[in-house]
Amino acid sequence: MPELRKDPLSNTWVILSPDRSRRPQFYKPSGEYSLTVENCPFCPGNEYMTPPEITAIRTPGTLENQPGWFQRIIPNKYPALIRDETPGIQNEIAGEFYENYKGMGAHEVIIESTDHTRRMEELELEIISNVFCAYKTRIFELKKDSRFRYIQVFKNHGTRAGATISHTHSQVLALPVIPGHILDRLNHAQSYFKKNNKCLTCEMIKVETTESKRLLFKDNRFVVLAPYAPRYAFELAIYPLHHGPSFEEIEDEAINALASVFKQTMEQLNKMLKYPAYNLVLHTAPTGMEKQSAEFFHWNLEIVPITSGLGGFEIGTQAYINSVTPEESVKILKN
Amino acid sequence: MPELRKDPLSNTWVILSPDRSRRPQFYKPSGEYSLTVENCPFCPGNEYMTPPEITAIRTPGTLENQPGWFQRIIPNKYPALIRDETPGIQNEIAGEFYENYKGMGAHEVIIESTDHTRRMEELELEIISNVFCAYKTRIFELKKDSRFRYIQVFKNHGTRAGATISHTHSQVLALPVIPGHILDRLNHAQSYFKKNNKCLTCEMIKVETTESKRLLFKDNRFVVLAPYAPRYAFELAIYPLHHGPSFEEIEDEAINALASVFKQTMEQLNKMLKYPAYNLVLHTAPTGMEKQSAEFFHWNLEIVPITSGLGGFEIGTQAYINSVTPEESVKILKN
Repeated sequence: MPELRKDPLSNTWVILSPDRSRRPQFYKPSGEYSLTVENCPFCPGNEYMTPPEITAIRTPGTLENQPGWFQRIIPNKYPALIRDETPGIQNEIAGEFYENYKGMGAHEVIIESTDHTRRMEELELEIISNVFCAYKTRIFELKKDSRFRYIQVFKNHGTRAGATISHTHSQVLALPVIPGHILDRLNHAQSYFKKNNKCLTCEMIKVETTESKRLLFKDNRFVVLAPYAPRYAFELAIYPLHHGPSFEEIEDEAINALASVFKQTMEQLNKMLKYPAYNLVLHTAPTGMEKQSAEFFHWNLEIVPITSGLGGFEIGTQAYINSVTPEESVKILKN
Repeated sequence: MPELRKDPLSNTWVILSPDRSRRPQFYKPSGEYSLTVENCPFCPGNEYMTPPEITAIRTPGTLENQPGWFQRIIPNKYPALIRDETPGIQNEIAGEFYENYKGMGAHEVIIESTDHTRRMEELELEIISNVFCAYKTRIFELKKDSRFRYIQVFKNHGTRAGATISHTHSQVLALPVIPGHILDRLNHAQSYFKKNNKCLTCEMIKVETTESKRLLFKDNRFVVLAPYAPRYAFELAIYPLHHGPSFEEIEDEAINALASVFKQTMEQLNKMLKYPAYNLVLHTAPTGMEKQSAEFFHWNLEIVPITSGLGGFEIGTQAYINSVTPEESVKILKN
């Protein structure tokens, strides 16, 4: 049974999910996995290896949990949090300074394609659009469950980025708490709004578009920026020009444009960094805070290539050392 | 020229140090390095490969920057921050929401031993004590420079823990700012003290000693605990029983006891995890805050084995998923 615990010294939430240590890849010191099409649980024909699907895009007439699908959404077989549980405090607590919570939530996997080897950005534009559509519909669906306070959509590609299965997929985690770091981000954005009556991100986009040295791409819907203070080398973020707190309100046309921007950006990164491991992180307004954060929160999608690991400095301080400036990243990526 | 920048959306400090990308190991996708005794800059006979030493423990009569040393402290050849700089804002700032600072600071390396292959915990107790002595004296020395606001001592062992050189060493980084995460830790400890008139860590140690299920070791000077909410599998922390905010006030006898506790704890981890990559992180009171934090801050040494990488969830939320509970860690490590 998973459990959420807060560290009293740092106020950091940790999900303890002992069942995840049963994953077949757990504990291989190199973190490597070696799945072929035959034993890959995300390949067509192996549907029996996963929990029953939540939903799928399929050829009409094909059966659930059988081949014939193009995209498949399933519960994570080794979930960090589980859904069939009432929220609340987990049994005894040792000290009044220890805070915990039952490991209630949802943990879903979006199998983006039937293709075992291609990366998300190498798929056809329509299939990439379907992935972002799945982000939208899963957030909508999970936000209906009022026990969930925050939904984190993310993607781990490559072992160095935390993936244990190579077949391209994304994950959705619904939490019964809002992580402190997310609250901090909201608070900073709100403070700025209170003082300036403007959205911090909108202002940042204005400055970056004029400055242009950290601007990788801009069309009439999106900008791709190297952040002013990037934690990782070649870190990028996609921002919609149209202000809005919630990714899930995105329109179909914008999804298609996003797929195109994502594909193009990743192609530039892949060319320069030779197909790096990477994470995608979607920031959308927490459940129930869409209205109150409507004016000051601005959804965005972070792209974080993992070219080097963190060290003791980062673990100790949650500050970062980065050898590549954003200005240099953009210069290199633009050629 | 390095630079400190604060991300306006998350208030996170980032050290941008472009010169570090000149490190010979930078960008090898696997992060691997292959140094032999002949080309290891930390081996005796290769002193010319490093910047001139700051100090060393040597056989009487041997010359600086020549063999004959047992421990050698040098400036980092590729420093994240540099010392010969006046603090202050770095040139132009693009938007009023962007905060930056010149990359002023210090970045030192403690070469713990002449031995190219042994890990720190495999060295003789006296040599391990010398390492902790070096932590103490370098903190004392660097705290004399009033431009430095925070000193982070840490150790990266193994590529997965961020090391680029395998020869055992620790690092000391002096910063002109206090990272937000460190301020948060101080604030939480202070709030608890204001409310309860007790040190949060002292209370935690009391509870954990009674509960015992997260207690790995205790003698009359130190406890080794698996934290209640560990971010990483088999994460541990060493706490002194004697309350004090500053590691650098530690007495010689306590240093010897700490060396022994550290060696023993690491031997248990090595046996179970087969010599994992790991980080050491020392938390001591920020410069100039020793007195005001004397009652509520309690120094400690974190031991963080790196058995798996972080993923998009952790990058997005700064919350963590961990498959091994601290109770299980302690049970396994005790056998």
